[in-house]
Order: sequence, then structure tokens, then C-alpha cells
Amino acid sequence: MGIIKKYESRAEKADSLLCVGLDSDFEKLPGRFKKLPNQQFEFNKWIIDETHEYVAAYKPNAAFYEARGDVGLRELKMTMEYLQTEHPDIFTILDAKRADIGNTNNGYVTAIFDWLGFDAVTLHPYLGREALAPFLDRKDKVSVILCRTSNEGAGEFQDLKLLPYMEAISPEPLWKMVAEKVANEWNENGNCMLVVGATYPEEMKIIRASTGDMTFLVPGIGAQGGSVSEVLKNGKNSERKGLIISASRSIIFSNNPRESAKALRDEIQSHRP
Amino acid sequence: MGIIKKYESRAEKADSLLCVGLDSDFEKLPGRFKKLPNQQFEFNKWIIDETHEYVAAYKPNAAFYEARGDVGLRELKMTMEYLQTEHPDIFTILDAKRADIGNTNNGYVTAIFDWLGFDAVTLHPYLGREALAPFLDRKDKVSVILCRTSNEGAGEFQDLKLLPYMEAISPEPLWKMVAEKVANEWNENGNCMLVVGATYPEEMKIIRASTGDMTFLVPGIGAQGGSVSEVLKNGKNSERKGLIISASRSIIFSNNPRESAKALRDEIQSHRP
Repeated sequence: MGIIKKYESRAEKADSLLCVGLDSDFEKLPGRFKKLPNQQFEFNKWIIDETHEYVAAYKPNAAFYEARGDVGLRELKMTMEYLQTEHPDIFTILDAKRADIGNTNNGYVTAIFDWLGFDAVTLHPYLGREALAPFLDRKDKVSVILCRTSNEGAGEFQDLKLLPYMEAISPEPLWKMVAEKVANEWNENGNCMLVVGATYPEEMKIIRASTGDMTFLVPGIGAQGGSVSEVLKNGKNSERKGLIISASRSIIFSNNPRESAKALRDEIQSHRP
Repeated sequence: MGIIKKYESRAEKADSLLCVGLDSDFEKLPGRFKKLPNQQFEFNKWIIDETHEYVAAYKPNAAFYEARGDVGLRELKMTMEYLQTEHPDIFTILDAKRADIGNTNNGYVTAIFDWLGFDAVTLHPYLGREALAPFLDRKDKVSVILCRTSNEGAGEFQDLKLLPYMEAISPEPLWKMVAEKVANEWNENGNCMLVVGATYPEEMKIIRASTGDMTFLVPGIGAQGGSVSEVLKNGKNSERKGLIISASRSIIFSNNPRESAKALRDEIQSHRP
């Protein structure tokens, strides 16, 4: 029973595929937090208190904490300690988009999996599987590989067409090769997921068809304009799950994070027949 | 006059293309540092004191500091403050291998360029130029894009052959496309460099031929087995420079870092006719 089961169990318990992105941009915190010590942590604690009922996963993006140096990193750790104490069954992903070579990655493994205690981390594929072994070898943790990212210019390299390879009779884009390599070769320990942006529904359909029941982390809903119904239609697996649907600004900086989380959770559920 | 001039001026002054990697793995620090407060910083200070005379750039890898959480990050900042005070003319690169989408990168820009004060940062190309704009727009700082990395398995994606494009009449590998895109399109502000591993001399020759006088950050010398003479032969630009040749373990964990740095600096110079 792999670590991905942790996500699935929580998704079942909360009846939710929703992931709330704790992209707690210091500059955007509501005024009342500015007077408190540990402002980023206090904001996260409030968001967690308000939204946890509807949430299967939380995903802080490391950039918003590193922007404040060692202070931000400490508040990220406080956030994780709070989650581990209050809601240990909720799946946690650090959106850190790391990847170095070989043993150097051990530093990130220690920081993200052991010191901070995340269940999963997002990773760049460019250096290849051999480089990422320190992450992939951790059977108790999930490696979420960037495949088709949600940004407008994602295609600059990801869409490049490769010469026909293996069984393929037509040229395939790089993102498809990343999806297939991860699904067929990197996932020996059953601990890989893929990042597939909601803003590219056609690509998501193709990636689902080539990767079996693999779980996708799906950014791009909400502020970026991806459609929930398209994500469910194109991305769900044979068990009508296999998705971690992430939204951040549209929930954490809304007037009522609890209501926004519930509304998005319910919208997602309405498209799971 | 761009920021890359900072590197070139220092390289001229020190008569050196050597970059020392401050990969100060806490577990490997000599015993005498273990008794001090701020052990990683004290080790770095000692390495800097011993080697600066022969050095054009210093390059800490973020993973070795993040492994110690907020404490490590603080000692990385102390290291930068020491460099800025004692040797403000030495070029500084954070080997952080970052890249997120759009505005999220602002957090890393703030952390790395402003809070820590580095001149340059290493970046993954996978998300494309549009995503990296917050780095590329900083005319006063250098974006060092991963092109051909030094690790054994680098080719898994980097070697994939692309369908012939533009003027090309034969299929080109992904790493060449990255090199050409960065040189011809991303470098509008004259603030880009490329990572090209010393362990791939043939690729380096081709990248030099397609990118004019662009500066390469070259890891893979020393412990990884790359050859200094091959790097100079294949990588130097029309002015016999355009290289930042990085070594870490073979200098900082040698018996005599000063002598090791001098020896490598001299070896590099001996291949610059």
C-alpha cells in the first residue's frame, strides 16, 4: 500500500479532490494578520481552519516563503507542524519545482521530506531519472513530475515534436514523452504523479490515455481559467478519481475562503458521476 | 555595460576562470568546525579566505543549505554578507535550479537576487521563456539556463531528437534547441548564460558554435571527471574566455583548499594560449 493511498483515503473521507494552494503571498495578506507575529503562519492556520473540511490536500508554493528568507521558511515549518498535529490525514505537497543532480538532491530530500515533513514534492524532468533517484527512491514519498505545465508559454519546449520513437508512427511532443517515461519507467515504486495543467484539456486527455490510472496534480483552475468540467471529463481515471485539483488565489484571497472551498469542492463533485 | 562584465572584470583581475562551488555539505565539514556556532558559515569563510585570490566566482548550491532548514539559509546569507563586504568584485551564483510560472517566480527573485544578493541563479528551461520573465527582466542579474547538464543520465530528455525545424536540415537534439533559443531569443538583455557540463565535450563544441560568445557555466570538472583541456579547447569563445569553470569537492574538501584552487586556476590558465 503506497503513499498515494494517503491521498486517496483522504479524498474519500472528505469526499473531495480539492487541493488548496497555500500561496500565501506576504504582500497580499489581509491587514489584520500584519499585527501578529508569524503572519504567514497565522494566515495559513486560519485558511486551514476554514477550509480543511473540504480539502484532500494542501500545497504551499515554496517561492512565497523563501521570499522572506529564513523567517518564511520557519513559518512554512510551523504550518506543516500545525497540519501534522491537527490534520495528519490530509495529503501535503510542496510545490518547489526542484531537481539537481544525483547526491545534491539529498539536501532537498532532507529539507522537504524529512525536516518539513511533506508527503510530496514537484520536480522538473530535464535532468532525467538518474539525477532524480534520491527522490524516486523514497518509497514513502511522492515525486510529482512536471509534464504539461499550466502557463501560457508552456509549449516553447514542451510542444517540440520529437522524431518518431519506439512504437510511435507519428512525431510526438516532448510532454507526451515525459508522461510515458514517468508512467512506464520512473514509477517502479508506485510513487510518481504528473503535473498536468487544467489550461490544456486536449493534452490532458492524451496524457490520461497513455498513463493508465496515474494521479495528476492539476493547477490552472480558478485565476488561470481552466474548466472544472473539462478536467473531470479528460483527466479522471478508470475509478473516477486520479486527480488532485488545485486552486489557490481564488480560495485563499476570496472574501470567504470556507465558502469558496466548499463551492469548488461541490463543483468538482458534480462532475464526478 | 551588463552584469556579465562583473564576471569578466574579476576574471581579468584574478587572471582566473575558476569558480569554487561552496557545496558545504554539513556532514562532511572538518571536525574543528563542529565546535563553532554557524558551522557552515565558518567553513565557507575559511574557504573564501584561503581561495579568493585564485577565484573569479563562488557558487553555493542551495540544497546543502536548505538541508538545514532556516538555520542553513541564515548561514548562506552570512556567507553572502561576508563576500559582499570582503570581496564585492567576485561574481556570485546561487546554484538553485529554480523555475516556476510567471509571478510565482517573483518570490525566488526576491529571495535570491535581493535578500541574499546573488549576481546570478541557475534555472530550468522546461516552462519556457514566458514563465521565466521575472528572472530575465532583471537586467542587473544573470539567468544561467540549464542546457547540457553534467550528470550521466542527462541525455534521457536532453538528447531526444527533434523534428527538423527552422533552417535545420537534420534532426537536432533538445539541448541544442535550448542553447539556440536562449542565445537568440531569451538574451535580449544580455544577461543570460548557459550551463554546459564538462563531461560532454562534443556537445560543448556544438553549443559554442551555435551561441557566439555567450558565457558557459561549466560543472563536471574534478570529482565528475571532465577534462580542463577539453573544456578550454571546445568551450572558449573568440576572446579566449566565456567560461566559468566550477569545481567544488575537489577544492573545498581537499587537504589544502588554497593549493587546490591555485593548481586548478593554473591548469586552466595553461590551456588559454
